[in-house]
Amino acid sequence: MDLMNNKIQLPLEKLPRKWLNIAPFMKSKPYPLLLPNGKPADFDTMCQIFPTECVKQAVSQEEFIDIPKEILEAYVLCSRPTPIQRAYRLEKAIGVEGDDIKIFFKREDVSPMGSHKGNTAIAQAYFAREQGLKGLTTETGAGQWGSALSLGGALMDLQIKVWMVRISYQQKPGRKTLMNSLGATVLPSPSDQTQAGKKFYEKDSNHPGSLGIAISEAVEASMSSDEFRYSLGSVVDFVCLHQTIVGQEAKMQMEMINEYPDVIIGCIGGGSNFAGLAFPFMKDKLTGKKPNLDIIGVEPMACPSLTKGEFTWDFGDTAHVAPIVKMYTLGNSFIPAPVHAGGLRYHGAAPLVSLATHDGVMRSIALHQLETLNAGIIMSKSEALIPAPETTHALAAAINVAKEAKQNGEKKTILYNHSGHGFLDLQAYEKLIAGDLVDYEYPDEEVKKSLSELPDVDESTFMG
Amino acid sequence: MDLMNNKIQLPLEKLPRKWLNIAPFMKSKPYPLLLPNGKPADFDTMCQIFPTECVKQAVSQEEFIDIPKEILEAYVLCSRPTPIQRAYRLEKAIGVEGDDIKIFFKREDVSPMGSHKGNTAIAQAYFAREQGLKGLTTETGAGQWGSALSLGGALMDLQIKVWMVRISYQQKPGRKTLMNSLGATVLPSPSDQTQAGKKFYEKDSNHPGSLGIAISEAVEASMSSDEFRYSLGSVVDFVCLHQTIVGQEAKMQMEMINEYPDVIIGCIGGGSNFAGLAFPFMKDKLTGKKPNLDIIGVEPMACPSLTKGEFTWDFGDTAHVAPIVKMYTLGNSFIPAPVHAGGLRYHGAAPLVSLATHDGVMRSIALHQLETLNAGIIMSKSEALIPAPETTHALAAAINVAKEAKQNGEKKTILYNHSGHGFLDLQAYEKLIAGDLVDYEYPDEEVKKSLSELPDVDESTFMG
Repeated sequence: MDLMNNKIQLPLEKLPRKWLNIAPFMKSKPYPLLLPNGKPADFDTMCQIFPTECVKQAVSQEEFIDIPKEILEAYVLCSRPTPIQRAYRLEKAIGVEGDDIKIFFKREDVSPMGSHKGNTAIAQAYFAREQGLKGLTTETGAGQWGSALSLGGALMDLQIKVWMVRISYQQKPGRKTLMNSLGATVLPSPSDQTQAGKKFYEKDSNHPGSLGIAISEAVEASMSSDEFRYSLGSVVDFVCLHQTIVGQEAKMQMEMINEYPDVIIGCIGGGSNFAGLAFPFMKDKLTGKKPNLDIIGVEPMACPSLTKGEFTWDFGDTAHVAPIVKMYTLGNSFIPAPVHAGGLRYHGAAPLVSLATHDGVMRSIALHQLETLNAGIIMSKSEALIPAPETTHALAAAINVAKEAKQNGEKKTILYNHSGHGFLDLQAYEKLIAGDLVDYEYPDEEVKKSLSELPDVDESTFMG
Repeated sequence: MDLMNNKIQLPLEKLPRKWLNIAPFMKSKPYPLLLPNGKPADFDTMCQIFPTECVKQAVSQEEFIDIPKEILEAYVLCSRPTPIQRAYRLEKAIGVEGDDIKIFFKREDVSPMGSHKGNTAIAQAYFAREQGLKGLTTETGAGQWGSALSLGGALMDLQIKVWMVRISYQQKPGRKTLMNSLGATVLPSPSDQTQAGKKFYEKDSNHPGSLGIAISEAVEASMSSDEFRYSLGSVVDFVCLHQTIVGQEAKMQMEMINEYPDVIIGCIGGGSNFAGLAFPFMKDKLTGKKPNLDIIGVEPMACPSLTKGEFTWDFGDTAHVAPIVKMYTLGNSFIPAPVHAGGLRYHGAAPLVSLATHDGVMRSIALHQLETLNAGIIMSKSEALIPAPETTHALAAAINVAKEAKQNGEKKTILYNHSGHGFLDLQAYEKLIAGDLVDYEYPDEEVKKSLSELPDVDESTFMG
């Protein structure tokens, strides 16, 4: 253990200047996005929803896409490049100490908002402002993404309007305050500001809301104004693209200590933090340089889209205003149990992550929250870091892989994405410590029902 | 603005290996601690309260005291050395951009527990364990110090027992959870575990408690067990000593960019974060190298011990179980208004900081919380960092000094201690944004009354 030399810090001058586009390297050709009417989305329609530059990036076949200087400066302000650490004390705590098993983790928790989300929030805010827009709209459930976009807005002098699911708005005043302190407008959803919201608001002005309604409101607000566009925090290709700065840094950091991971692990909700770490390594697998690299996405058992879902066409949202994409899905009407990893409660997974899974380039597993949050406690006691509930999924998987390797007498170098801290999610740990936390079984019947209600898409009309 | 080169990161190999003891450099000779009976504290009695090594450090006249390797390793794990940044975007936001006025800040908020407190918590836990003790007891109000000591306990495999003021225990479950997640035992105070607590607990098992009662419980629990000692998070000399790693790093970081601050600023409750940053620079002032250095401690107007208090002998605590020290005090029976900067609500100030103020080596000012928290919002919007309410005092003072220099056409390089983040204090900002936050006038009459009740100490019996 060389604890005095355990922070692998990429020199500032090595900060990646480009994002890596994994699309041209994929084994199978990526599928297009479809409009809610089932037709492939045309460029102009997409540009009515998202900032134009982001749409361009989403359809680009360039291997690398330049990161503008102002985004790089904001990344540096927000603690990029982030460190990698070896979890020596965790290794000892779980009984795998020594030189055969090595667990490394990438510290995306050091960003001011506490997670990886800023990597794309900053980029989207920049491109929106450069386009001459006044602002971006978005939705937020627990508030993690809304906070990150608010940060992006503050740094780029852009107005941010966040529709926050009303029940969270009421129960998580801290998140709302954080967004307000960054200058963002936060509206409880359903609101009376949109047609989509009014339908619910007028019946019940205290309606608890849902992510589906909040998405509808944010999309409607952007499409009904020339000065606003809609911003998404995960799933779509350009978000995964922006996150690849994480994995590019990580590759160089591992090189600095003459290591290359055998296993890459990230938790998966929409898939962006996973993609961010994994894609730059996955490129080595796809190009034949590292054929045996094991890449693992970790989902909650309450919502195992990749692990138990179907690879098919589905709406990105429950309200059917977002595009239809080909992905692993549990069906857009499926409502996952209220596990504490709110950020992982998504019925689908990013199209590129789904495709990589379908192509056999990566695999996924699903874990229960009691196991993952207990791993969080082990991490807290050993490495003094309390992870976000989402992050505990990657952590718990890393622990399992390490223990298994130890048992089998294998050598293994593991790298996982420590995607966020848990300071604003302490209720999850409170319940765990009090013994009040429960696991939710995989809801087989509900998923079957939800999967029976997918949109009708005839691939043959647009796939060659 | 060179935003791409704005993180001044001390190379790991330059991490200070010694703490700086300011005592031998002080203009006036430091006063001894007295026992509650008014007699100078003898070594053995002090060792019944605190870990022996800490007592030795408190009376040491050595200029430098070695930091043991295991403490250095834990410091590195907890993000030392911490960066310094220039607040370019803040400078712009307050209208002082350019090269005449420079605001730098030391990022103590990057520690896993979110503040500077770990610097002494880790050290005290180490020395306690090396002494063969089983654990440390302490009290905590809002929970900041309790969390830091819990972290120290986790890293050093030491039991930590925290008596937490019951009203905070009930209102701030997050802090309790954080301590529990690190393995600490947290008891609501008053408890039925100590004589001091029982007196109140038996009358009212839901007694809201006070810091005074919690201190009494923690001290009693340590003194009634051979295996436990008591741990303090501020005020005493050895705590200030442990914090000097902050200022030593800062000096080297400023040297790296060929700067030396004209003004050093820190907020003051007990005084430890201030002392940590200021003492290594203050040494240059005391030794004649930097005679004009302006060193400013910033207090809340609701509790301006240095700014409006009396330099005299007083109990360190309201319960009269802690030692009597010579310091600036508002009187130990004074109860400050409930400002959000809970960590600054201390009736006195560290003896060494008090003496430096009395000697004219530094000065203090007092600010209202509306002003300081508004500064926090400016910082949040410009630099994407939401500071702890305590930290906003140093920040607001830095802003004032900068604006004043600008107005006077002066050049000024300012360095302040960004002592902690505000993620667990968002209620303060919530109230501010909602317009519900009030200022409290300086309570003249209450302080007069409190100052009329100081202990009787006859200095001539022990001062030469």
